[in-house]
Amino acid sequence: MSYINYSYEQLKTFCRDAFMKFGFTENEALKITDVLLLSDLYGIESHGMQRLVRYHKGIEKGLIKVDAKPETVFETPVSAVIEGHDGMGQLISIHAMNIAIEKAKKNGMAVVSVRNSNHFGIAGYYAKMACDAGLVGFAMTNSEAIMVPTFSRLAMLGSNPIAISMPAEPYPFFFDSSTTVVTRGKLEIYNKLSKPLPEGWALDENGNACTDAERVLKNIVGKAGGGIMPLGGNTETLGGHKGYGYGMLCEIFCSIFSGGLTSNHTHIGGKGGTCHGFMAINPDIFGDREGMKQRFSTFLQELRDAPKAEGQPRIYTHGEKEIFAYADRMKNGIEVNINTVAEMKNLCDYLGLDSVKYLGDVDFSDAKQSSYK
Amino acid sequence: MSYINYSYEQLKTFCRDAFMKFGFTENEALKITDVLLLSDLYGIESHGMQRLVRYHKGIEKGLIKVDAKPETVFETPVSAVIEGHDGMGQLISIHAMNIAIEKAKKNGMAVVSVRNSNHFGIAGYYAKMACDAGLVGFAMTNSEAIMVPTFSRLAMLGSNPIAISMPAEPYPFFFDSSTTVVTRGKLEIYNKLSKPLPEGWALDENGNACTDAERVLKNIVGKAGGGIMPLGGNTETLGGHKGYGYGMLCEIFCSIFSGGLTSNHTHIGGKGGTCHGFMAINPDIFGDREGMKQRFSTFLQELRDAPKAEGQPRIYTHGEKEIFAYADRMKNGIEVNINTVAEMKNLCDYLGLDSVKYLGDVDFSDAKQSSYK
Repeated sequence: MSYINYSYEQLKTFCRDAFMKFGFTENEALKITDVLLLSDLYGIESHGMQRLVRYHKGIEKGLIKVDAKPETVFETPVSAVIEGHDGMGQLISIHAMNIAIEKAKKNGMAVVSVRNSNHFGIAGYYAKMACDAGLVGFAMTNSEAIMVPTFSRLAMLGSNPIAISMPAEPYPFFFDSSTTVVTRGKLEIYNKLSKPLPEGWALDENGNACTDAERVLKNIVGKAGGGIMPLGGNTETLGGHKGYGYGMLCEIFCSIFSGGLTSNHTHIGGKGGTCHGFMAINPDIFGDREGMKQRFSTFLQELRDAPKAEGQPRIYTHGEKEIFAYADRMKNGIEVNINTVAEMKNLCDYLGLDSVKYLGDVDFSDAKQSSYK
Repeated sequence: MSYINYSYEQLKTFCRDAFMKFGFTENEALKITDVLLLSDLYGIESHGMQRLVRYHKGIEKGLIKVDAKPETVFETPVSAVIEGHDGMGQLISIHAMNIAIEKAKKNGMAVVSVRNSNHFGIAGYYAKMACDAGLVGFAMTNSEAIMVPTFSRLAMLGSNPIAISMPAEPYPFFFDSSTTVVTRGKLEIYNKLSKPLPEGWALDENGNACTDAERVLKNIVGKAGGGIMPLGGNTETLGGHKGYGYGMLCEIFCSIFSGGLTSNHTHIGGKGGTCHGFMAINPDIFGDREGMKQRFSTFLQELRDAPKAEGQPRIYTHGEKEIFAYADRMKNGIEVNINTVAEMKNLCDYLGLDSVKYLGDVDFSDAKQSSYK
């Protein structure tokens, strides 16, 4: 697969203009762009430009309502429930996390739970917002059901990521991961390469382990059974019930607290219904904020300095890879794969934007049709 | 291995009297007993009577101070930091979770972080305390380092369990699990049976996968390297960095918030230093408490009713197995393995209690020496 290199500024301009063409204000378009591009800058290719096609389809089908404004339907000094009215997930989520941050600054900590939203990009973006404000940030989302609970053969929970970010030196702790063993994007990559999946990732329609990426993806799209295993696999031997448990934690903060749809009821019959959960904790509620940061930074350094496993060059703490990727991509540009660029061109055509102006004169002979339905 | 059957009342009397002999008040002894016996009643053998020998040794060596009282060193309406003064983990933790519950009832939610405590039994006990009070409860603890971070060969984090409990019908959600793939207790069972460990559990002193239980346990005791893999294993392919991340979440709530020792510094040089984290969230802060409980109960039922994987008779939601075990053991008694009964007899002898009165006239010819050092 070939790649095209774009600078951060190029992609920002394209993305901003595209979302403005959809009807978002410049301020809104820049917010959405910021979430999507952080993903590409962090090296999380699946959630940046590659996701544009989903937002495109979502807006086109009316799943995502451009004019919707998030509404606070219940609140206390440490909480809020937000009705998203099927708006753009990034806008609702930035709004919701800002409420959590304000409440946590004032009252020590807060949880904000959101219902009837849409895909919000990387969970880590919102955890990072709190971290950038000097707080400990947590962000979660449910999603279209894709995780098969232990001993089942039907996806009942989403990929249900949990992100956590906390200030530290020389860079913050930043953990952002699905509670499934992998995300659907990984399966799509194996499918595109016609490679068998690693053992321990996916299940067929009968709930048996399956390494056939095409079959699993077809089943997922057709809601025919099967899906992805929870972190820990499909048995209790390696702790699959634990991944399933963390998926439940995510569901509690998202759909249960907000009164929204659990993952198994989202994305059915022309309705999205994605739910999110945000939490911010002010370090001041434990006393010495600076001392805490210092102790945490020391521990992270001890982890990085620990003896390596045979043949391993380094130990990472969470967020390090993203920091390095960010620096590299800001300097050297962002590699966007040709299929994604083709989707971006389609989007330009759909919106009446001049694709050559934004994307250059690209040779698409190497591009495949997107697998997104 | 043979087992002796004791009624709940028999074990309660024994345990209470033993802790009173150690110098705890009757009220304190009953609290400790309640934590330990809930574990046996829930079928979590490793954390009930089987742990008595560790408390015995801990008190004997002065790691656990019988007279220590927990002290609140910092607090706000939504938080507290507790200095445990090396007291008994269960007493400090019940005290700490009660503070979290009171604050959450009054102010919506609260986090209480504890330093310089000791082993507190099952994390789930404290999460359940909040659940019994109608709240969502979270309990975590760090521990002697046993989890080897991704690409390392030295244990740097504890088994770092995270427990979550939330009201539901017909029984609450109760999730309690280590962030390692398994706990040390499981390795000890395989060692006693001289069986090779399942692949994907443990690492040798060089950080390579290892199925030799004896070698791994010897290394752990001797702090010679190796240990247990995070949930997800020792590679990124199956998500080992995620289990390591949840271990970090636990560390943040326990040692980092409290200003205590991170797992890699506990249990060194005659010092325990275990840290705990507790959180309670009042469902009232999201509005309709009863509606939430109902919706959550419905989701749990949908999970149990989901189509089963081929050959699987049922799908569990978290806490079901414990509820069934509790009912069974209250009715039919608790099976205690002969090695543990031998340790209980040793404890009687040490404390000057009449072991025959408490434990009956047991034939110990089948018992082995405890592996605890």
